[in-house]
Amino acid sequence: MDLERSPLAQPFPEIPSIDGVTLRIARAHYKSWDRCDLTYVELAEGTTVAGVFTKNVCCSSEVELGREQVRLGRARALVVNAGNSNAFTGYRGREAVEQIMAQVAAHLDCQPSDVFVSSTGVIGVPLPKDKAREGVASVLQAPACSWEDAAITIGTTDTFSKGAVAKAVIGDRTVTIGGIIKGSGMIAPDMATMLGYIFTDAAVEPGFLQQCLSAANESTFSCITVDSDTSTSDTVLAFATGKAGNVPLASLEDIGSEAFAAALHDVCKRLGMLVVRDGEGAQKLIEVQVSGAVSDDSARRIGLAIANSPLVKTAIAGEDANWGRVVMAVGKAGEPADRDKLSIGFGGVWAAKEGLPLADYDETPVAAHLKGREIDIEVDLGLGEGSATVWTCDLTHGYIAINADYRS
Amino acid sequence: MDLERSPLAQPFPEIPSIDGVTLRIARAHYKSWDRCDLTYVELAEGTTVAGVFTKNVCCSSEVELGREQVRLGRARALVVNAGNSNAFTGYRGREAVEQIMAQVAAHLDCQPSDVFVSSTGVIGVPLPKDKAREGVASVLQAPACSWEDAAITIGTTDTFSKGAVAKAVIGDRTVTIGGIIKGSGMIAPDMATMLGYIFTDAAVEPGFLQQCLSAANESTFSCITVDSDTSTSDTVLAFATGKAGNVPLASLEDIGSEAFAAALHDVCKRLGMLVVRDGEGAQKLIEVQVSGAVSDDSARRIGLAIANSPLVKTAIAGEDANWGRVVMAVGKAGEPADRDKLSIGFGGVWAAKEGLPLADYDETPVAAHLKGREIDIEVDLGLGEGSATVWTCDLTHGYIAINADYRS
Repeated sequence: MDLERSPLAQPFPEIPSIDGVTLRIARAHYKSWDRCDLTYVELAEGTTVAGVFTKNVCCSSEVELGREQVRLGRARALVVNAGNSNAFTGYRGREAVEQIMAQVAAHLDCQPSDVFVSSTGVIGVPLPKDKAREGVASVLQAPACSWEDAAITIGTTDTFSKGAVAKAVIGDRTVTIGGIIKGSGMIAPDMATMLGYIFTDAAVEPGFLQQCLSAANESTFSCITVDSDTSTSDTVLAFATGKAGNVPLASLEDIGSEAFAAALHDVCKRLGMLVVRDGEGAQKLIEVQVSGAVSDDSARRIGLAIANSPLVKTAIAGEDANWGRVVMAVGKAGEPADRDKLSIGFGGVWAAKEGLPLADYDETPVAAHLKGREIDIEVDLGLGEGSATVWTCDLTHGYIAINADYRS
Repeated sequence: MDLERSPLAQPFPEIPSIDGVTLRIARAHYKSWDRCDLTYVELAEGTTVAGVFTKNVCCSSEVELGREQVRLGRARALVVNAGNSNAFTGYRGREAVEQIMAQVAAHLDCQPSDVFVSSTGVIGVPLPKDKAREGVASVLQAPACSWEDAAITIGTTDTFSKGAVAKAVIGDRTVTIGGIIKGSGMIAPDMATMLGYIFTDAAVEPGFLQQCLSAANESTFSCITVDSDTSTSDTVLAFATGKAGNVPLASLEDIGSEAFAAALHDVCKRLGMLVVRDGEGAQKLIEVQVSGAVSDDSARRIGLAIANSPLVKTAIAGEDANWGRVVMAVGKAGEPADRDKLSIGFGGVWAAKEGLPLADYDETPVAAHLKGREIDIEVDLGLGEGSATVWTCDLTHGYIAINADYRS
């Protein structure tokens, strides 16, 4: 099926080359399509790595292995297969991943555990080993490609390529953090998964890189939702080549650590929002701001209950300031809330305050706001200091068309 | 908007009159429509009552008061307003409910707490007291009506009227249990709520009636979902008039208690499934059978994760035996599951067993099954003895049309 480019798409940014990172792409023919579907990233010796993975207990072998590899903290290469998620394929799927790791390790003369593999696409079909072998052999000989080429090649049902870049000053060095990501539904028809890769030339100890990535994940990737369906393969990896020559960052006390953590957070947030912007059928980007909750965690869960509510998402699709549905979603979240302290607003205008619809509520500016592409929902629980921001998209006929009308 | 009758609709059953129960309907004009929208049920002196209510913390005054009233165990009347849910209306909404309770109590010469009130419809608009007063005055003079008339009058976006009946033998008496219910989305556009009312001529102590209703609720109303959105007003009440003259049931040890509990469970299950059959946009009824879980509770949560997954529901809408999406939903449920012990089937045919797609999986009978109106999904976790059955409907363009395309 041909998908139209999302109306919320953004142009691919200018990402400079990052010292120690070389990108290559090739055709492994995982599906009968005429496109590159295998991405290879070679990383300089000494590169450190951190990762966050899906919590779905039916995860793929790639995710299982990746979790173990990240603990070792070292990386030399990344291979991404598009068109086959290799999830729910048992030992046969695992063998295909181990074959790729061994093949690349032999080429680089490194440990197989230094080679990270991700796959995205159909569930339940073991990744074909012969296609993988030929694809890897071909990509190892391929010329270096651009960030955007790689971003396109890791995509499946994505309607636009997605990247983000930020810089941070560490002592006398300026480091670059660049990232690419794919994803549009948590699982799209026959396809799957959010996969994100972040690269920096900064020198960062793996434990601290993991700490920064995990912290950023909490308020970025863990705060986006398209359809509440958690993929079996979601993966975000961060690689630090150390080529910028800064004194390696090992803790938040080190000079430049806060700047690095903030820049990494910025890249994670922008990558996450690009996924929402490419949400299946999305016509509007929705930002849900929750404040006054008993804790930040509670605020995030309430935000996700709103962002996952089909009735809230269809109301926004219909440009309807239906705050009653927001009330319903707050109430069902299973978190502390007091109906008579609850306030709801759209685009900065309160519709209901402290448990009652506002008598002088003027829907005119709200109606204008809802006609736009970027919608803000504000919720104040009036209970405490906890807050969170969550991003989602509206639920439209496009989502049904993508997921029901076409057979996978 | 005019909604087409659900293709899953069932005819209204023959419910005999139940001694001690008199039904009346009238026009309160809660909306500018030409239909009865106020239902009144008079109950004989000595009627006992039990109830289960929404867990949504932003619940309506009706639900708050109903919870307190059920603890007293006595009922003389029920009033149901259609067209206005009176939820999120603060003290003004509560005053309207208390006015109705007082007005009916004066007429019957009973306590206001013996009068139960439910409301369903738009959120955030206080129930107009003047219309309620005139409506109640009118309904108290109205002639008795049929079960189906009452079932129609409590409805809002329902596309067919819903009732169920069962009999049980208690000693030398045969008792009747009849029920009516409304609901199609947990919250429909401008409308809301599942409301169910069950009446029996059996004599049942309120504590035991509550025990039977709560137990039935666990495996019936708590096992259905249309869109995962929990209304602010969901209510199921059971009234026992005692007119059958049996020795009052007080515990499961009493003669006839098990038959009564089973018949009540049967009515609850049939009423719950009728709501799913009228799910907004529903084209198919889906039964999810989960076995092999570590506990029944765990099985139910896994069943609901599957039944609430937009990707599973759109796959069924598309008649696509996409068992990978079922795997995904099992994995995200947050319950114990082992990918390599998991089996998935449709309509009695296994597609995947113990973590691997079946090599000899024949999709032909599954494809035929998925073309039908009633779809079975079987999941065996292979871990323990826990099991549960959950019912939902598919997610179609009709749901989007009802909830997004029309402004409320």
